[in-house]
Amino acid sequence: MDDQELRLAQVSTAVRTSPGGGGARPPVVGMVGAGQLARMTAAAAIGLGIRFRVLAGNADESAAQVCADTVLGDYRSTADLLAFAAGCDAITFDHEHVPQPQLAALEQAGFAVRPSAASLRLTQDKLAMRARLTGLGVPCPRFEPVASVDDVLAFASRTDWPVVLKAVSGGYDGRGVWLCRSTREVADVVSHGVSLLAEEFVPYERELAVLIARSPSGHGAAYPVVQTVQRDGICHEVLAPAPGLPDDLAEEAISLGLELARDLDVIGLLAVELFQTSGGLLVNELAMRPHNSGHWTIEGARTSQFEQHLRAVLNWPLGAPTATAPCIVMANVLGGDDPDLHGKLNHVLAADPAVKVQLYGKPVRPGRKVGHVTALGSNFNEVRERARRAARYLAAGTEDP
Amino acid sequence: MDDQELRLAQVSTAVRTSPGGGGARPPVVGMVGAGQLARMTAAAAIGLGIRFRVLAGNADESAAQVCADTVLGDYRSTADLLAFAAGCDAITFDHEHVPQPQLAALEQAGFAVRPSAASLRLTQDKLAMRARLTGLGVPCPRFEPVASVDDVLAFASRTDWPVVLKAVSGGYDGRGVWLCRSTREVADVVSHGVSLLAEEFVPYERELAVLIARSPSGHGAAYPVVQTVQRDGICHEVLAPAPGLPDDLAEEAISLGLELARDLDVIGLLAVELFQTSGGLLVNELAMRPHNSGHWTIEGARTSQFEQHLRAVLNWPLGAPTATAPCIVMANVLGGDDPDLHGKLNHVLAADPAVKVQLYGKPVRPGRKVGHVTALGSNFNEVRERARRAARYLAAGTEDP
Repeated sequence: MDDQELRLAQVSTAVRTSPGGGGARPPVVGMVGAGQLARMTAAAAIGLGIRFRVLAGNADESAAQVCADTVLGDYRSTADLLAFAAGCDAITFDHEHVPQPQLAALEQAGFAVRPSAASLRLTQDKLAMRARLTGLGVPCPRFEPVASVDDVLAFASRTDWPVVLKAVSGGYDGRGVWLCRSTREVADVVSHGVSLLAEEFVPYERELAVLIARSPSGHGAAYPVVQTVQRDGICHEVLAPAPGLPDDLAEEAISLGLELARDLDVIGLLAVELFQTSGGLLVNELAMRPHNSGHWTIEGARTSQFEQHLRAVLNWPLGAPTATAPCIVMANVLGGDDPDLHGKLNHVLAADPAVKVQLYGKPVRPGRKVGHVTALGSNFNEVRERARRAARYLAAGTEDP
Repeated sequence: MDDQELRLAQVSTAVRTSPGGGGARPPVVGMVGAGQLARMTAAAAIGLGIRFRVLAGNADESAAQVCADTVLGDYRSTADLLAFAAGCDAITFDHEHVPQPQLAALEQAGFAVRPSAASLRLTQDKLAMRARLTGLGVPCPRFEPVASVDDVLAFASRTDWPVVLKAVSGGYDGRGVWLCRSTREVADVVSHGVSLLAEEFVPYERELAVLIARSPSGHGAAYPVVQTVQRDGICHEVLAPAPGLPDDLAEEAISLGLELARDLDVIGLLAVELFQTSGGLLVNELAMRPHNSGHWTIEGARTSQFEQHLRAVLNWPLGAPTATAPCIVMANVLGGDDPDLHGKLNHVLAADPAVKVQLYGKPVRPGRKVGHVTALGSNFNEVRERARRAARYLAAGTEDP
């Protein structure tokens, strides 16, 4: 078989004219990556009768522990990706790290890559994303590519300190965002040699997020706007819907999200992180996958973000994104010193029979997201305290802050 | 190694003093059987960080399709059961068919069999169950073991026609209950040679069910009492909570369920099917596993029956069984002539974005339960119509009754 024949053979097995599966064959969705997002998507696939396949680096990864159809392979290998994708009605992603050439190879082989390589590129290249948003007239913090300490100082002289430096793609030491308060801190970041952009530090009132699902047919659905509470760049809590958010701002955020999903041709989920400022909303970050700011939807929305993502990438009708309770709070469980989550889980479940827990099956490491809890009710103070208490105890074995 | 040594080796790997797993090892629950109950339990295990293992007859079974830790084996084989159970913190069941000697072997090897062999016996031997309930003073239909047509006729002469014949255990042609209106029908059932008991036909107003969870520590939780709608012995709909049920009857049903769970020493779930009659409540059937009458709890209760069963068999604190909406209706999807459930699913999801669907991954056969749908809201007429419409369409490709 020469190359041309090989290519045709791949296309003939891969292209399906009826996404979602015609006949009696159940639809197959492949998710590249096997972290907690894939794990929670696997749970959602069960009820929908979707055959769910994950591409995992090793068999111990979060989703690989639970998913019957786990394929071991390297997401940077075109051969591994093509083998993984064979027979899938849609290919989607638990993370943004699949390189563009490999994404292009999947698309050229006829697979339904959702979101597309072109859309995903914007989540892989913050400069491209910022340029695109600016071109669309979307309000963002001021930004500039920078290549030297002098570049950053010149930028800061116009925007004031502190200044935010972001890796254009990737980062180092697991980080991609640095808040710099001095020339020395800037020099330290620049010294690592990663491509950077500088952003003005926005004195926001709070952070919000809006979560959109969009299907290939153009059907869109928006979840209620939420408030996110971050510390040291890590999401700690999500309050849904954002308490006290004026209707016009909620409307604005949702319209912005729906328009962005359309303009960037996102298929699946689009999470838009926003700054709420005295001057209005600014877009901080985008993600095109299930997102931490949407974990509350497992119990708190009629359709969870994981079910919604599956429906969107299969071009199925989207589900109702409506909240199931007036006040919902999700709190992340960050690893502490004690590796035994389940020992502490008993206490948490006994203390609050209505709190919901999701554990990710990951070894506990200090500061690592190893699970989350969700509380629901009708009073934010009470619900937030319940979620915090449970998350704190799972993290640290104590309810004290 | 002689037999004594072998036995000790089995015990030393099997006995765990801290159910739920001490240290950092996640707890492992093994479920014998891989039907839809195991499939939905697998989904619930994911969030709790429980390693869930199923014993399947073949890799195509409902739960085997989705569960990462599927062991192929025969539930009638002691060797297969012991190998399956190794490393499990609790062994539980998707069905009642594991024979008593095999259950005893698991218990003797030190495994935590939940519910116990002694409790499960009552679900395997309807005569033993009826005798036990009678001994406990629980109101039941009149019954009698029968061995001949004459026995049945004598029984019917005291209770009136029609008469209900039940196989003491098992049955034939997949059935275990026959409503007989004539001597000829009785003779037909008797001719198959299965052990039978006769029960009076109860002119009930409606059927109810109460679902209880009980843990080894004696902690119990009761779900709201539901109404079940059966046709030809097959559950079609469940309305939760049972519409218009007077508080005192609901209280009575829940007390009856909690007392039965205690008296029969049930660990895990106990489903009690009841007849509501003008003279009060009568117990029809018992099951000690997740039950069709509890499928509504996936979306309709704060803790689903599947999560609750896992928590109970691991001796974890039980979860809140409270309903999440005023009116919840579950409708079973019975197979029709068209094998393509997913083709019809698109229509159903488009017609009602808020209806929830669970598909079991089973080949469609006429009359077979292949999934269920759940609708939630605040008006039973509206919610019931939504659930019926969705279930009808999935079954038959039409919304017409």
